[in-house]
Amino acid sequence: MLLLIPGPVQTRPEVRAAMAQDIAPWDSGFQPVYARVRDRIVAVAGGTPGVHATLPIQGAGHFVTEAALRTFVAPGAKVLIPMNGAYATRMARLAREAGRVVVELPLPDTRGATAADILPALDADPAIGTVAMVFNETGSGIVNDAPGIGDALRTRGTRLILDAVSAFGVLPFPMAEHPECDALVFTSGKCLEGMPGMGFAVARIDRADACAGNAGSWSFDLSDVLAHARRSGWGSIRFTPPVQAIAAFDVALDLYEREGGQAARLARYRENAAILYDGVLALGLKPYLAREHQGPVIVTIHQPADPRFDLMTFVEALKRRGVLISNFYNTAAPTMRIGAIGAITPDDMRRAVAAIGQALDDVLKQAA
Amino acid sequence: MLLLIPGPVQTRPEVRAAMAQDIAPWDSGFQPVYARVRDRIVAVAGGTPGVHATLPIQGAGHFVTEAALRTFVAPGAKVLIPMNGAYATRMARLAREAGRVVVELPLPDTRGATAADILPALDADPAIGTVAMVFNETGSGIVNDAPGIGDALRTRGTRLILDAVSAFGVLPFPMAEHPECDALVFTSGKCLEGMPGMGFAVARIDRADACAGNAGSWSFDLSDVLAHARRSGWGSIRFTPPVQAIAAFDVALDLYEREGGQAARLARYRENAAILYDGVLALGLKPYLAREHQGPVIVTIHQPADPRFDLMTFVEALKRRGVLISNFYNTAAPTMRIGAIGAITPDDMRRAVAAIGQALDDVLKQAA
Repeated sequence: MLLLIPGPVQTRPEVRAAMAQDIAPWDSGFQPVYARVRDRIVAVAGGTPGVHATLPIQGAGHFVTEAALRTFVAPGAKVLIPMNGAYATRMARLAREAGRVVVELPLPDTRGATAADILPALDADPAIGTVAMVFNETGSGIVNDAPGIGDALRTRGTRLILDAVSAFGVLPFPMAEHPECDALVFTSGKCLEGMPGMGFAVARIDRADACAGNAGSWSFDLSDVLAHARRSGWGSIRFTPPVQAIAAFDVALDLYEREGGQAARLARYRENAAILYDGVLALGLKPYLAREHQGPVIVTIHQPADPRFDLMTFVEALKRRGVLISNFYNTAAPTMRIGAIGAITPDDMRRAVAAIGQALDDVLKQAA
Repeated sequence: MLLLIPGPVQTRPEVRAAMAQDIAPWDSGFQPVYARVRDRIVAVAGGTPGVHATLPIQGAGHFVTEAALRTFVAPGAKVLIPMNGAYATRMARLAREAGRVVVELPLPDTRGATAADILPALDADPAIGTVAMVFNETGSGIVNDAPGIGDALRTRGTRLILDAVSAFGVLPFPMAEHPECDALVFTSGKCLEGMPGMGFAVARIDRADACAGNAGSWSFDLSDVLAHARRSGWGSIRFTPPVQAIAAFDVALDLYEREGGQAARLARYRENAAILYDGVLALGLKPYLAREHQGPVIVTIHQPADPRFDLMTFVEALKRRGVLISNFYNTAAPTMRIGAIGAITPDDMRRAVAAIGQALDDVLKQAA
């Protein structure tokens, strides 16, 4: 079975194998594994050791996003969120329910946001101290211009929180060049091709210290995660982690480096996405995004207008042909969402396109 | 290696093996697995289908404890916490940082709390609406009398939140007989002998609905977890879970049932703890608790008064003899903490006692 979903992604057998072991998280035998993971994460983030720290939060990506919002935006403070997809909507809800004042900036979900979109909203409301945004919008497949927006914020003294959950490891945002960024957040089960279970923020140590007392939640207080790490000589994770997911992430990082790191992985995903994009076009389907706005992580496709088409039936038919895609969608219009990430090669993607064509025939014939 | 720690515990190979697979959490192939887990959890909790629901929260036990406190104690409301161990201290911090008013009831950490301890504090402050407490205190090994305290609260109309993280599956607290209990919380990696990564609350559906709006955190809102479950036909977990840990938990529940469920597992743990207690006494060590206060989950032992003893050195020496225990302790006095839970047999425990004796010799000779 090929998993073509934007996480948890298809992994390699050696990554999965690392899950099948009992580990005591604080054991001296495991500490070097975690130290390797922690340091490599700062390196992948383009951060500076001593300036940036890896701060772990167990669980889903939403948890580490909420932790970053709680830690780096004071209660009652204003945060601007460019609203152009399902994960932006979720980020706004996380911030709002945490008692932060969300200024929503509505934008189309068919192209990435740029600094030109953001700046007028900041000019209009000088009380906005932080922009929080999604890097790769998993709802549609667009990529927001995080580096360009970061550059613009830096010159104004506005802070940035970047949800890089489905971008980290492939879309570059070098933290060392972006001191305006308080935290970049991601999880283990996306473009680094690990297993799900662990979230991480790469954050500025000075800012995490300065923001102590903001969180209003011990569990989601990244300042306390930092304080704990420092107290434990950076070796220990606060609260019991899904430790097998960390061991698997260490193996996943080995494979990432062996592949050639960010550039090589981005090139593979771009090729996967292009094969998928061209392939579905050739099948007579209509991608949701114009080619110039199509990112490398997921390809969203309009559901066929044919009244015989039903998404659940199609997903099951495609599964019988060895390909699993999401059985839901995150756009206003009815779409299908197909991941281009994970341990998937261009040849896999060509097979997937063929399977999509066959499954479409199955469904439309079956319904006929 | 024998893991003698109070979680993540030693597991059986078939449980670990279930971790080594890629799974899409919303896939129709996985939904029956989650449905089995969810329903069996309500059964193990002694709950009533339709009255009680399994509400999943990804991550550490502290996360689901914070979620229960946020959901079932309104912001600014008073919650009484019997303070007799490290996990009670943590619970108080979770509640306080979430903006709940914690009334601390100091109690000795060498015996379990009873209703007689609690009631005077409730009489003294009628504004206390909820008692939140730890069932098995992993800090020392005492067991608080949750059923007796629950009975006393029920007659007064006081609510209960029960942290059963290291008790669930062995120490009975039948939810159907305890309508005063809003939530019982636990995690996958303790007495059910699964892998770490998932937390669960078993909660009253009517109370979770009635408490909508309390949480002040979307991630930790059990009312929203319930609403999501209901919307999805109870089949889907809100936000990406560490899905492999759920698959492994399903296998762990099979093994639990095959062993004979709660009574059989408690009997095995009691025997493990008794062998350990008697064994360390025979080695000349002094248990932290009197025999009548010793629970079945962990045995805490005073560190030898011998100035040559060092905990880290001892833990490493014991590891060389095939047994891993915690390299930290959670009591005011210097102790060692040894778990009696997990896939550990009485024979394993006899071997562990022998290894403890040998490692003590190693350390004291080495230092001599």
